[in-house]
Amino acid sequence: MKFEKKDILGIKDLSIDEINLILETAESFLEISTRKIKKVPTLRGKAIINLFYEASTRTRTSFEIAGKRLSADTINISASTSSVVKGETLIDTARNLEAMNPDVIVLRHSAAGAPQLLASLVKQSIINAGDGAHEHPSQALLDMMTIKEHKGKISGLKVAIVGDIGHSRVARSNIYGLSSMGAHVVLAGPAMMLPRDIEQMGVKVFSRIEDAIADADVVMMLRIQLERQKQNIFPSLREYAQHYCLNRKNIKLAAKDVIVMHPGPINRGVEISPDIADDPSYSVILDQVNKGVAVRMALLYLLIGGNE
Amino acid sequence: MKFEKKDILGIKDLSIDEINLILETAESFLEISTRKIKKVPTLRGKAIINLFYEASTRTRTSFEIAGKRLSADTINISASTSSVVKGETLIDTARNLEAMNPDVIVLRHSAAGAPQLLASLVKQSIINAGDGAHEHPSQALLDMMTIKEHKGKISGLKVAIVGDIGHSRVARSNIYGLSSMGAHVVLAGPAMMLPRDIEQMGVKVFSRIEDAIADADVVMMLRIQLERQKQNIFPSLREYAQHYCLNRKNIKLAAKDVIVMHPGPINRGVEISPDIADDPSYSVILDQVNKGVAVRMALLYLLIGGNE
Amino acid sequence: MKFEKKDILGIKDLSIDEINLILETAESFLEISTRKIKKVPTLRGKAIINLFYEASTRTRTSFEIAGKRLSADTINISASTSSVVKGETLIDTARNLEAMNPDVIVLRHSAAGAPQLLASLVKQSIINAGDGAHEHPSQALLDMMTIKEHKGKISGLKVAIVGDIGHSRVARSNIYGLSSMGAHVVLAGPAMMLPRDIEQMGVKVFSRIEDAIADADVVMMLRIQLERQKQNIFPSLREYAQHYCLNRKNIKLAAKDVIVMHPGPINRGVEISPDIADDPSYSVILDQVNKGVAVRMALLYLLIGGNE
Repeated sequence: MKFEKKDILGIKDLSIDEINLILETAESFLEISTRKIKKVPTLRGKAIINLFYEASTRTRTSFEIAGKRLSADTINISASTSSVVKGETLIDTARNLEAMNPDVIVLRHSAAGAPQLLASLVKQSIINAGDGAHEHPSQALLDMMTIKEHKGKISGLKVAIVGDIGHSRVARSNIYGLSSMGAHVVLAGPAMMLPRDIEQMGVKVFSRIEDAIADADVVMMLRIQLERQKQNIFPSLREYAQHYCLNRKNIKLAAKDVIVMHPGPINRGVEISPDIADDPSYSVILDQVNKGVAVRMALLYLLIGGNE
Repeated sequence: MKFEKKDILGIKDLSIDEINLILETAESFLEISTRKIKKVPTLRGKAIINLFYEASTRTRTSFEIAGKRLSADTINISASTSSVVKGETLIDTARNLEAMNPDVIVLRHSAAGAPQLLASLVKQSIINAGDGAHEHPSQALLDMMTIKEHKGKISGLKVAIVGDIGHSRVARSNIYGLSSMGAHVVLAGPAMMLPRDIEQMGVKVFSRIEDAIADADVVMMLRIQLERQKQNIFPSLREYAQHYCLNRKNIKLAAKDVIVMHPGPINRGVEISPDIADDPSYSVILDQVNKGVAVRMALLYLLIGGNE
Repeated sequence: MKFEKKDILGIKDLSIDEINLILETAESFLEISTRKIKKVPTLRGKAIINLFYEASTRTRTSFEIAGKRLSADTINISASTSSVVKGETLIDTARNLEAMNPDVIVLRHSAAGAPQLLASLVKQSIINAGDGAHEHPSQALLDMMTIKEHKGKISGLKVAIVGDIGHSRVARSNIYGLSSMGAHVVLAGPAMMLPRDIEQMGVKVFSRIEDAIADADVVMMLRIQLERQKQNIFPSLREYAQHYCLNRKNIKLAAKDVIVMHPGPINRGVEISPDIADDPSYSVILDQVNKGVAVRMALLYLLIGGNE
């Protein structure tokens, strides 16, 4: 099968076949990161621009390492040191970058839809590395890859996603992806943190974490964005943790062989207790990060190296 | 012809032969950026430091891509994350970098003359990527390359440069370059935005944009630096736009086949109306950006690769 | 001899044999930086992460150039543009980076002991690029290399270190290293700038610079950290300079062929007078920077390339 898409904008746009192709390609790349010489010449002479309008360590670094392992050139642009401070629009920035002939632009932006806009304007491949509260497709793909490795399948599993669903691009991408791959997705979170269109997404919603994680094969905890607390979106961290923190007690409600996931960065003691986050019998959090490099290598390869 | 200069500090220092050699070299490099494998081994093992004391997206990225396409190593230093915050002088920073044996230092600095100072102190080649309101030679070279491609020549053309001439290193470098290449350069801008030594530069100055662009083959609009407005250097953006914005009406005064240029980033609706900026029958703005990579490849090649 | 250490955390941990091996390896690398093609394929396919929680130009650039000259991939993470702003702990950041399979993490952190913590948690090699007021081993190694080159030996030399000893990781690493290599180290600085455990380090302390530098073969001046002055740790720069600035007068007290060192960035006229800093008959300051690249190449090579 050939990968025909120009861009990776969201999981919603991907067919089951496309998701499977990405996951299989990523699995074949996993081994490269364990070699002594962690580099293949696949994308030599290709240029990847990481255009990040929001601060990021892991996602930017993961894409940069993925590009370098395939021998691509990587160029980082972060808003804080760029002419964004001069007030240039995203569109003009993108058109200017297009004129320099890179092969891929990896975009993180606080505005939902920004990558779609770019993709419609420039000829290069765009990868959405997170747009507002909309989508974060490479995260959902690495999550699916991690689940598949630990559970052998995705279809038929019960996956509970817990936390600030409404503001989470990770949740949204995973709801699309896991549902279309046949998982049974349930959600839990405070009412004010749930999106309005939640029922249309075909997932069941609970207000208590206990109801969501009961018998779950996978529990995915979301990061509470502390910066939002100042906006009084939720009452207090302590109160949040009291009701929604995954801990050694409520985890017992889940399936015996449950795996615990988190997109990071973790707020220990807020959405997840430290002993669960660090317990290798539950937590696959660092395995997610490891899969992330392979998934991003696969995306880069399929977009600009796979059809030649 | 061999390129003998150690540094590229300003267009004023370049002979017509040197400008032509740079433009011809750049033209020969244009094709590399359109290949599937956009990379040649020409500068393998050379190190280029981008030392930027002012925020920049396009110029820094353009130099970085140019270096990487020639297989050089590129190292970025931006003032915001460097020991500049510890108060080290530019001279000490430069001498320290010199001791690490890079091959080229690309410098952007808010102080006019900073690259000249560096060039006199360190043995490496210095490329001025913009120094205060003084010069921005790689920009003027890419502008000349763009004009040459679209008009087949530079000599004999009427070129109008409009805007905040006094604060524009782009204007200054282009006045030197285009005049010496035989173009007839005219300027327009508010009186308080014109440099005092303007008559000595051998160019005609108008206060009305209409007088400058009449029958012009090339109209080059300058960016209004919004950050200056706070200093009350000009009354209001609205007033400025009313008198100096290039729009669908006044562009009719220019030659029928006029091309419109802008060094970017554009303030749409201030110095140029969006419909002109985006109209491919006039605007060559993104073509300028494209030529920028080739010009910078040529500069790097001629300074550190051409004589071996 | 094989280098057996996993990490470079401090000079205190290194044996004399290990220090000698590093210095000899660095000497063998010096020549690479003088070639036309300044690059060897030794560390191709290895990835080095520069994780800097404090601003730095020279150390970060030196490590980056060192890595690139050995053909490693280098990835920079600076706190200001990373998810450190999201409040992630150093431990979580490190574990996440570990999961991406780099080969070395070079860490600069304001907290003493941070590299030790990391080294105990992650499988990759950690190089301490400065931790609080604790150690800066690559700086001390390049200082030893510089002394060895200029003096032919370290053992038996009198080395005076002058300034804010208590806050200086450079001083601490050099006291360990130079003492163990057989030098006679003496210190001078204002009483409030001396560490409490100073006598245990086996070095003699003077309150007057003149007493310390008398007959010294090497005078190492430390940077006064201007940012500390706000905390009223010392009375005034003028007063400090009056008593502790190395100048054309007091330098006469040292040995006739004394060399003057400084880790940079220099505060001219505070800890060292400009004419001494720039006088090639005394100053080896830029030579230190030059040796720095070679020392860092040696560290990277011995940690991840030397045993294969």
